[in-house]
Amino acid sequence: MHARTALAICLVFASAAAVRAQSRPPEVDPALIEDLVAANRILSHEKVLDSFGHVSVRDPRNPNRYLIARAVAPSLVTPNDILTADLDSNLIDAQGRTSYKERFIHGEIYKVRPDVQAIIHSHSPTVVPFSVTKYPLKPILHNAAFLGDGPPVFDPRDVAGATNLLVETPALGQAIARTLGKANIVLMRGHGDTVVGPNVRLATFWAIYAEVNARQLAQAIAIGGPITFIEGEEQRLTHQNMAKAYERPWEMWKREAMTAR
Amino acid sequence: MHARTALAICLVFASAAAVRAQSRPPEVDPALIEDLVAANRILSHEKVLDSFGHVSVRDPRNPNRYLIARAVAPSLVTPNDILTADLDSNLIDAQGRTSYKERFIHGEIYKVRPDVQAIIHSHSPTVVPFSVTKYPLKPILHNAAFLGDGPPVFDPRDVAGATNLLVETPALGQAIARTLGKANIVLMRGHGDTVVGPNVRLATFWAIYAEVNARQLAQAIAIGGPITFIEGEEQRLTHQNMAKAYERPWEMWKREAMTAR
Amino acid sequence: MHARTALAICLVFASAAAVRAQSRPPEVDPALIEDLVAANRILSHEKVLDSFGHVSVRDPRNPNRYLIARAVAPSLVTPNDILTADLDSNLIDAQGRTSYKERFIHGEIYKVRPDVQAIIHSHSPTVVPFSVTKYPLKPILHNAAFLGDGPPVFDPRDVAGATNLLVETPALGQAIARTLGKANIVLMRGHGDTVVGPNVRLATFWAIYAEVNARQLAQAIAIGGPITFIEGEEQRLTHQNMAKAYERPWEMWKREAMTAR
Amino acid sequence: MHARTALAICLVFASAAAVRAQSRPPEVDPALIEDLVAANRILSHEKVLDSFGHVSVRDPRNPNRYLIARAVAPSLVTPNDILTADLDSNLIDAQGRTSYKERFIHGEIYKVRPDVQAIIHSHSPTVVPFSVTKYPLKPILHNAAFLGDGPPVFDPRDVAGATNLLVETPALGQAIARTLGKANIVLMRGHGDTVVGPNVRLATFWAIYAEVNARQLAQAIAIGGPITFIEGEEQRLTHQNMAKAYERPWEMWKREAMTAR
Repeated sequence: MHARTALAICLVFASAAAVRAQSRPPEVDPALIEDLVAANRILSHEKVLDSFGHVSVRDPRNPNRYLIARAVAPSLVTPNDILTADLDSNLIDAQGRTSYKERFIHGEIYKVRPDVQAIIHSHSPTVVPFSVTKYPLKPILHNAAFLGDGPPVFDPRDVAGATNLLVETPALGQAIARTLGKANIVLMRGHGDTVVGPNVRLATFWAIYAEVNARQLAQAIAIGGPITFIEGEEQRLTHQNMAKAYERPWEMWKREAMTAR
Repeated sequence: MHARTALAICLVFASAAAVRAQSRPPEVDPALIEDLVAANRILSHEKVLDSFGHVSVRDPRNPNRYLIARAVAPSLVTPNDILTADLDSNLIDAQGRTSYKERFIHGEIYKVRPDVQAIIHSHSPTVVPFSVTKYPLKPILHNAAFLGDGPPVFDPRDVAGATNLLVETPALGQAIARTLGKANIVLMRGHGDTVVGPNVRLATFWAIYAEVNARQLAQAIAIGGPITFIEGEEQRLTHQNMAKAYERPWEMWKREAMTAR
Repeated sequence: MHARTALAICLVFASAAAVRAQSRPPEVDPALIEDLVAANRILSHEKVLDSFGHVSVRDPRNPNRYLIARAVAPSLVTPNDILTADLDSNLIDAQGRTSYKERFIHGEIYKVRPDVQAIIHSHSPTVVPFSVTKYPLKPILHNAAFLGDGPPVFDPRDVAGATNLLVETPALGQAIARTLGKANIVLMRGHGDTVVGPNVRLATFWAIYAEVNARQLAQAIAIGGPITFIEGEEQRLTHQNMAKAYERPWEMWKREAMTAR
Repeated sequence: MHARTALAICLVFASAAAVRAQSRPPEVDPALIEDLVAANRILSHEKVLDSFGHVSVRDPRNPNRYLIARAVAPSLVTPNDILTADLDSNLIDAQGRTSYKERFIHGEIYKVRPDVQAIIHSHSPTVVPFSVTKYPLKPILHNAAFLGDGPPVFDPRDVAGATNLLVETPALGQAIARTLGKANIVLMRGHGDTVVGPNVRLATFWAIYAEVNARQLAQAIAIGGPITFIEGEEQRLTHQNMAKAYERPWEMWKREAMTAR
């Protein structure tokens, strides 16, 4: 990179930070907004999110609020698109803008999972087939030990009969939070999954490796024969270790996603 | 590339804006032409169209006409390539240019489906395997509820014996329109599919998610066991809802396709 | 594109053409060299060729010679890399450069197939699995009717016992030419395939759709049940028709490959 | 991105050339460092390495040392990131930087395999499914003859009971070196593989074709029926030949990886 190009990039980012300072209440750490935007872009670039998914973080100023983009495709999210909602998913600062209809997923999970600071809902392409078959999405790759012994699967028919499959009401949001329980991820039948985590970088890591493990498990099933899963004490140790290992991939993914066209 | 070719490209770029203003009758909304061009580019960028597919819209000035590109690969279509045909698929304003030989697909469907305003014919790569096997391409992903209980499959052998598999006559166009019936999509054996819709953005959405659902269904089949499809009232509600949800993906796909090299 | 950028492109191409004129004997049509280079780049861009494949055309000045690149990865081939060989695959104008060790494939086929004007040898990734199993690579997609009722498979063990699998001798070149017979393509066990055609654009078309049909057939097999192939009179009509249809994809592929980084 | 981060990037770029000159002992051939960096970038670009893999070369100045990057994603490695370790995997010139926790893989293999000059550890995506099933990853493609009759599979449970699956101790490094034995590659259950070679270009070639062969073998298995592997004398001849054939792909891969965004 030319020094001149690098300087131009500096100026862009410097002025972007200034603009941002006015448009967001001063007490929100811009680094958190930057992470939230990066998570949207990374998950789009990695093809985990299509145009419909969404990512949120709990508001560090007020645990009864969360930050989420207006209703725009994740790959197009910028800092100015981030709105604030309360845990009933009412928008606080929308100024005429709307957010995702399914944001009840976020609000209702934040209510009952105080440990959760970030939530990702996606149509993760290879997770969907596992949501409509009986084969559990158990971990075969060490990076995917967070999957435990196979995530719970949410089916809205169990609680609400025939629906449009979307989580567009508080009641459905509460139902998916119940199905999630203490897990890190819940599959959604015919729809995708929702990943929750203690911060948005680790949740991003988990959302990506849920997709990677799904691909590799589907291949292992096609190869055939008994499959060795990551289970028991090994699962616990592996999960514990990988939960600290998200900074290196985050740096790489962010560089790739933010410099992509 | 020849110097002559490069020079030709220069001239095209230099004069495109000027030429465009005169080459289209003033009453066509340029936004519709832009959408038609964008659909060609989006579907190419998303790998639903190869070099042979085509996209049309019914002419808003005259419901007995439709707009379709000259015979050029969809990824290369520009506003200057759009021609007008009557419903017998005679070109009105070709000025020596030709369009796709299979344009009877478009004309004959527009004749019998007044609700249809846009048509896409593609060699959608993962739809082809479903066209030559007996497994119905039923929806497992909520975005694909438009597939109903599995689309009809058109086989030219049923009406015309051995052919070159292309829909190059009015009779074959009428036959595919009959097989389509009231559906949103008809598979074409050993060939691909044709998607019809109330506008070109929704038809684009459906063409893309037909391919996505085909990929995911093929994976679910390989995983094995009973598969939960989207059926009955749930299918109706999901389809109804998704039919209003195409603007967000359109914005993203268009940005990606039109800024691609 | 800015006019300035377009102008820069013009100048580059214009000077490239000038340079080329000196480096090639005047009687070779530069358009043929351009096609040969483009075929190398297209087939690399479409992932049919890895770094080892090669493409040749029969020399229009002398049917007992052919043009082929020096030993360089196809994605890096430029007009200056094109050498001339006789049909025993001796290089005529190498000036110290070497070409591919397997060029006997080309020379020996040109000897016995006067109808062949272009040859492509590739490690086409999804064709390889069909070369090591018994399932015939028969056409399910109309674009692939040139595959006939399944191409012959060349196994060097049948003629030479244990080898390094490469066609590095005249005898092995003659053997593959015999196995090819009158077909358009011959699979090579554990290796890839060789496609022959009446011109390099059609051969390129066939090499790409051999790979596409292999992918789609593998998926159809995984979906299961009886598969409808393109056979008999339908195969004949489809093949005849598609053999005239390569200009539209060529234009698209060339644009994409030659403007890629 | 923070203005602060952007500024840091500027400073890095501005001072990189200057720093580099001093940070490497003069006697290391810069061409070897360039190869090591290129291998990191190539294997990332080819999707064999995700953000966690690592590549090393034995130090040409001292066979009891090796060169490996600091703990950074391979796609981001630059010459300034290369550190030196002794064969107990103590860092010699870290200046406060850390390297990969699993670097014992490298040190312990270099100890017992004097023929090995380069080592690659990856989470090669299609190799993982073969590490958790019983199907041996035997070669079907001539380029993959280095796989022999199927590589050994390392399972840390066999030597250390439940672990986090990572090779983070000398004892586990010694165990994987024992499992590797005289092979060119060892699979690691639920984790990936480690490839060793006489130079970093050939090791890169092998790491890439291990992944390619895994993909093609998985497809052959799905196609079904008996599969013809490369075995016996044919395997020996093919392996011998391909072991000299890495320069052409290296040139192509390096061009593509180093010019990628």
